[in-house]
Amino acid sequence: MVDILHRIAVANTPPAKVFEALTTLEGLRGWWTEDTTGDTAPEGVIAFRFPAGGFDMKVAELDPGRRVRWEVVGGEAEWIGTEIHWDLRQEDDWTVVLFKHQGWREPVEFMHHCSTKWASFLLSLKHLLEDGKGEPAPNDVRIDNWN
Amino acid sequence: MVDILHRIAVANTPPAKVFEALTTLEGLRGWWTEDTTGDTAPEGVIAFRFPAGGFDMKVAELDPGRRVRWEVVGGEAEWIGTEIHWDLRQEDDWTVVLFKHQGWREPVEFMHHCSTKWASFLLSLKHLLEDGKGEPAPNDVRIDNWN
Repeated sequence: MVDILHRIAVANTPPAKVFEALTTLEGLRGWWTEDTTGDTAPEGVIAFRFPAGGFDMKVAELDPGRRVRWEVVGGEAEWIGTEIHWDLRQEDDWTVVLFKHQGWREPVEFMHHCSTKWASFLLSLKHLLEDGKGEPAPNDVRIDNWN
Repeated sequence: MVDILHRIAVANTPPAKVFEALTTLEGLRGWWTEDTTGDTAPEGVIAFRFPAGGFDMKVAELDPGRRVRWEVVGGEAEWIGTEIHWDLRQEDDWTVVLFKHQGWREPVEFMHHCSTKWASFLLSLKHLLEDGKGEPAPNDVRIDNWN
């Protein structure tokens, strides 16, 4: 099993604000995809849709200001059964975000793509919180010939 | 052992041009760090320097237009003994770049940081080749409170 790992830090932003951007439809629409619907409460399922497809995430864990965990219950076959972990902590005026997309069965080419794409969406999250504007789909950063 | 994986594709650019950006001092200075010196020939050592430190890479493999492999022989302790693999191939008018930073002993927090940072430098490589201008250090994209 192989994981995608990333680290960003958001300047002048408390963990509660980052948590909000990960746990409300308005927040999620501001950095990942504008087409986000569903139930963001514990055990709820959030539907993320993109021009080329989408993912359904069950909200498996919410620890306010500290931790969010999603289980992938719908979408690309490679994602089903994987988990997304968000760990937040404050360091001075920054909120550090440790990201893990855990449980890939094989390091397939699509995993390489998703790793780079996650990085660009994490920077979108940072931009949303620091500058008031992210780059969510369908206006996301293109990284390769897939999207 | 855990790896960092990424995928980008460079539009309207043949593999030979991407290879050149990975194997000449001028190319490397355009997307990774302006302070790049050393010997880019097989078995040579290239010195990459950043405001906060640097890395020395031995050129372990060069397959023109297809593959580059570096062995890390100097720099942060976590990097020593790891390898950087670049695999290139053409798809229509794109050059697809598969990147692997292989051989991390542990998924430490610094590895999370380097994963996101590599993504931003790969996008810098894409921008250099597509638009004529990358974002090499010291003017690289800041991702967190480390750099």
